[in-house]
Amino acid sequence: MGRTVGCELTCMVMIYDKETDRVLVQERKGRGWDGLIFPGGHLEAGESAADAAVREAKEETGLDIVRPVFCGFVDWAHRESGERYLSFLFRAERFSGELLSETREGRVLWMKLDEYRASGDKSPGMDEYLKCFTGEAGELFARYDEKSADPLILQ
Amino acid sequence: MGRTVGCELTCMVMIYDKETDRVLVQERKGRGWDGLIFPGGHLEAGESAADAAVREAKEETGLDIVRPVFCGFVDWAHRESGERYLSFLFRAERFSGELLSETREGRVLWMKLDEYRASGDKSPGMDEYLKCFTGEAGELFARYDEKSADPLILQ
Repeated sequence: MGRTVGCELTCMVMIYDKETDRVLVQERKGRGWDGLIFPGGHLEAGESAADAAVREAKEETGLDIVRPVFCGFVDWAHRESGERYLSFLFRAERFSGELLSETREGRVLWMKLDEYRASGDKSPGMDEYLKCFTGEAGELFARYDEKSADPLILQ
Repeated sequence: MGRTVGCELTCMVMIYDKETDRVLVQERKGRGWDGLIFPGGHLEAGESAADAAVREAKEETGLDIVRPVFCGFVDWAHRESGERYLSFLFRAERFSGELLSETREGRVLWMKLDEYRASGDKSPGMDEYLKCFTGEAGELFARYDEKSADPLILQ
């Protein structure tokens, strides 16, 4: 075929406790994209996005999530080069295991969803990402280049 | 960041006429992946998947589709290299314009959805793709290498 472009492929997972209306939040510091964010990371070679979400949740929270549900994706597209940063978003309402209080990614804590939504300490873009996690949108898109990034728009 | 892998990024769109329960089908020949398939193609640099779906629908059917709805994605992942072939799937129930009977991609025709589903002339994988288009699955995944490809699985 041969229309290959360079992509970073990542996943993010909102672990949601329906009973208490809380989400599992990571306090990320000093690694770029700082702030309150959900667990996630890069897909490994030959790994599906859903499997990556399960693995990252385990590594970053200690919890085993079961059958995360795909919610949508975020597409950061370079204006000219064709390069992309893609993030596949999942929601997990079934989980087990013991919560770690902290990992190399930062502190991990449960927060009321509304409290998280209202927080000024969220990582950049999380207001828009939440729209995918909660089912309002399936595709988020923004163009960027070395100088600037456009706002994320719901497609 | 720097965990970049080579990806082919494509879209496919099921144009669905609710009133008559028909889908718009392309008869693709001699270009690989032959058979009855829906319109689609590669994303251009800086173009969102939804915009690509609108552009490809226009080029390959003559129709203007309005606000295609994201249904899910298909992820063909090379077992070792990290390379991917990703296809973002959309459904369009609103459209206007005059249908082309044929383009460089092949003949274009309306088919009853059930007739299409039952057809033995569908392009490879379309039975699984249909599960995304009709809302049964959000993510399809398969590993491949130079020798073989695994079956697509619903994630």
